Amino acid sequence: MNRSDTDTDTDTEARHREKMQRLKAAVDARIAQAQEDTGVLLVLTGPGKGKSSSAFGMVARALGHGMKVGVVQFIKGATPTGEERFFRRFPDEVTYHVTGEGFTWETQNRARDIERAQAGWVLARGLLQREDVPLVVLDELNIVLAHGYLELDTVLADLTARPLHQHVVVTGRGAPPALVELAQTVSDIKVVKHAFRQGIRAQPGLEL
Amino acid sequence: MNRSDTDTDTDTEARHREKMQRLKAAVDARIAQAQEDTGVLLVLTGPGKGKSSSAFGMVARALGHGMKVGVVQFIKGATPTGEERFFRRFPDEVTYHVTGEGFTWETQNRARDIERAQAGWVLARGLLQREDVPLVVLDELNIVLAHGYLELDTVLADLTARPLHQHVVVTGRGAPPALVELAQTVSDIKVVKHAFRQGIRAQPGLEL
Repeated sequence: MNRSDTDTDTDTEARHREKMQRLKAAVDARIAQAQEDTGVLLVLTGPGKGKSSSAFGMVARALGHGMKVGVVQFIKGATPTGEERFFRRFPDEVTYHVTGEGFTWETQNRARDIERAQAGWVLARGLLQREDVPLVVLDELNIVLAHGYLELDTVLADLTARPLHQHVVVTGRGAPPALVELAQTVSDIKVVKHAFRQGIRAQPGLEL
Repeated sequence: MNRSDTDTDTDTEARHREKMQRLKAAVDARIAQAQEDTGVLLVLTGPGKGKSSSAFGMVARALGHGMKVGVVQFIKGATPTGEERFFRRFPDEVTYHVTGEGFTWETQNRARDIERAQAGWVLARGLLQREDVPLVVLDELNIVLAHGYLELDTVLADLTARPLHQHVVVTGRGAPPALVELAQTVSDIKVVKHAFRQGIRAQPGLEL
């Protein structure tokens, strides 16, 4: 059958609709595939408030879906924080490691900090090998990397080798560019105002 | 006794130290006063990922400190999210209201959205009057305000009239300037990258 200029508009529309349907099916399949195969690496960085708390909100979400979660806190830990106290209530669901000994400016001991960071990474690697843990939080890892306490290549290699479906959330200021490159989602949290600067101390429930 | 150029360095140092100690005592007193008297209004805004999850991380922190928490979700709610499922496990500690019916672009019914928003604010106001609830989360309130579904002056007045020690966390894009003005801490979350844009759908545990 020959095509002619008299092909109806209806015919053109039908072809267009068909083409769009094929396109939509292809996009849907790609999205379904992506969702099926890919755990997200999420990096929360920048100086503003909300990086670690956001990671812990995702822990709560994951628990709401019956998922297991692994946490390594690389810097905090001199005193147990609210999040630690809370999530330790669920030892069957949350594997919770604290390797840091307070903020770095409080410890004043570089050799000790490096030792703790490396011990922390051994625990992190263990979580990054677990098929049964769909969410891993590496809290303040960026700080540890920025200080050069861990080798970046090792960290990137272990993140890349993790189970396909596993999500990882990395927090802390100063995310290294290669980590940002590897990540699918990156948020940069800016300070518009901070209560600290108005003489209000860190508040239990908000920061601690 | 006359002072002279022969006043010792030690003497000068002692005076300096004394002055610094007085200054430090004054600053400490001011901080202690501020902490004692002031609940923080925290606003998490901007297009990046992590606003609501951060608020829910603070809920977990607060629960770790044995605090009671109130939550109103103004937009989400068409399907129960992970955070809702999880925090509803603690009905004695968390008062959890969901007033929205899915994202606004899904509902397509402005009159209904306004009605739900106003019902939500009645519940929020109730929480903002409770002395026994030290943390209140108003999730996606900014969106509701940006759409003009609630009167901003009413919202600001109720926030201002809340108990002195109560912390409030408000989330959502497009925080109105007057709310930013009233807040002590404001973070603006920027998108560096987002997995959505790479064909990966919202992930249970991360976004849902």
